[in-house]
Amino acid sequence: MIRTDWTMAEAWAIHALPFADLMHRAQTLHRAHFDPNAIETASLLSIKTGGCPEDCGYCSQSAHHDTGVKATKLMGTEEVLAAARRAKASGAQRFCMGAAWRSPKDRDMDKLCDMVRGVAELGLETCMTLGMLSPEQVARLKAAGLDFYNHNIDTSPEYYAQIASTRTMENRLDTVEQVRKGGIKVCCGGILGMGEAEEDRIAMLVTLATLPAHPDSVPVNLWNEIEGVPVQARAQAVDPFALVRIVALARILMPASVVRLSAGRTGMSDELQALCFLAGANSIFVGDQLLTTGNPAAWKDQDLLSRLGMHIAPAQARPRVAAE
Amino acid sequence: MIRTDWTMAEAWAIHALPFADLMHRAQTLHRAHFDPNAIETASLLSIKTGGCPEDCGYCSQSAHHDTGVKATKLMGTEEVLAAARRAKASGAQRFCMGAAWRSPKDRDMDKLCDMVRGVAELGLETCMTLGMLSPEQVARLKAAGLDFYNHNIDTSPEYYAQIASTRTMENRLDTVEQVRKGGIKVCCGGILGMGEAEEDRIAMLVTLATLPAHPDSVPVNLWNEIEGVPVQARAQAVDPFALVRIVALARILMPASVVRLSAGRTGMSDELQALCFLAGANSIFVGDQLLTTGNPAAWKDQDLLSRLGMHIAPAQARPRVAAE
Repeated sequence: MIRTDWTMAEAWAIHALPFADLMHRAQTLHRAHFDPNAIETASLLSIKTGGCPEDCGYCSQSAHHDTGVKATKLMGTEEVLAAARRAKASGAQRFCMGAAWRSPKDRDMDKLCDMVRGVAELGLETCMTLGMLSPEQVARLKAAGLDFYNHNIDTSPEYYAQIASTRTMENRLDTVEQVRKGGIKVCCGGILGMGEAEEDRIAMLVTLATLPAHPDSVPVNLWNEIEGVPVQARAQAVDPFALVRIVALARILMPASVVRLSAGRTGMSDELQALCFLAGANSIFVGDQLLTTGNPAAWKDQDLLSRLGMHIAPAQARPRVAAE
Repeated sequence: MIRTDWTMAEAWAIHALPFADLMHRAQTLHRAHFDPNAIETASLLSIKTGGCPEDCGYCSQSAHHDTGVKATKLMGTEEVLAAARRAKASGAQRFCMGAAWRSPKDRDMDKLCDMVRGVAELGLETCMTLGMLSPEQVARLKAAGLDFYNHNIDTSPEYYAQIASTRTMENRLDTVEQVRKGGIKVCCGGILGMGEAEEDRIAMLVTLATLPAHPDSVPVNLWNEIEGVPVQARAQAVDPFALVRIVALARILMPASVVRLSAGRTGMSDELQALCFLAGANSIFVGDQLLTTGNPAAWKDQDLLSRLGMHIAPAQARPRVAAE
């Protein structure tokens, strides 16, 4: 059963279960909704890097922080399609295009829609993350065939002000709702390790799990050590089991959502990733580069998946269970 | 259902399952026979070290190998009881006393029985591992109240000759059968990482799982790097998931046996130990020293168990399901 009326008290109680009980409950649900041995693979490309006007404290692309990230213009469509071809060749099924914007300018929409159409013609699922969207922009992307739109809420509503001041949680949720109403699948998750409390991580998931419909994809990131951003001063290493508990809680609260083990995998042991997969993570980024941080090399992921007897899930095979 | 008619083909097929399926099957059985959040703790003392006439290729105590281990005489009973008190104070429930012998001399039996009685009076379960036993020696230890007798088969019957030449697998199985018939609980397992093949690890478990009755305890050891022993030349690091698969297979073949994650934990990540606990390992040695190799410090184990919400299983609470 898919619920959107979860309470923090319920989520806390599940999260606090003894590890074996939490894991068994998450696995049982995961196995009811997904092939437990299948994993979705996506590849991520920064199509416009740096110089972002938002001041998100975790992000190397903000113009507010001195992180050494070189700002670039929006890539050409051909350059993006070439990268998409490489991603497909290396086993990705979805191609995610990210631009460091507060929101896209209307003048860029034609080019963005061309990118969507071009990538889709390569047989890849398409995903974009461009910042906040107007209803018109959502409609244009939908018409171009965009499959997914990523727009993370990053953390809990209570902690959000510690992360960004140039935008609010309400801004984020508005865009998520626009995207959902516009018929594009929602990819929305958050980040652990920015100095937030355990409660903030749980509240982030409850926020997602009480949206009108659960996101189709829930990325769970471990904050990647980045020099020169405000979060660095507050960041704390996340206990591996704390990460697994959040993945398991995401799976239990949102049984039909794909949970992506996103940024931070380079710092995770194989065993930790295996625990996350058992807990319900069933998607990863492939390719050795995310937007600006590293990702395990392709051979390493192939080796890990083969030792676990996991296979790449055919894109259309993933069940989508709409919220009742 | 407890079976003792397992075949290698069945064991291979289970062992080769996709990791998530293998783990779910092992957890489901584990939860049917044990409290999945409980762990048994034992402490191990070498009551007579080194100078062993056996030539076991993995062992630092063999007189055949130059490992720098100083040979000692059999400890005094009081010294053993003092160690037992310390073990109890640090949370151990069982006190295992090991002597590096081919088999104990009759002249030592009185003293060994005094040790058993003395340790039992401290409220600890007792276990000894003294090498091969005669029926009379078994009877004496039983009369003294010995709870468990450890006598590992180390590896598969096929690989055994690569490990030791001064004794045979049949010798081992004879003593195990004597102990069982004598009414003492059997602790019998083996070692991974001695250059054996995957098949040997599976065959070791099938050998145990097709005994007239499954061992009460099945210790699974990772060979601890020891200088100067023959195994060192052949030893290979064991893939963490290979260890977990063997623990899961032990749990599935022997659902009511306690599976002890024994030597080698100092080299394991917390996540690997958590995977082993999920797979069915529900016993560990506590205290920072095994017979001659290291073991995680007490605080580290307490931290790990608390993060996993695990508690120490009251000794008598452990179900014993006799083979049908």
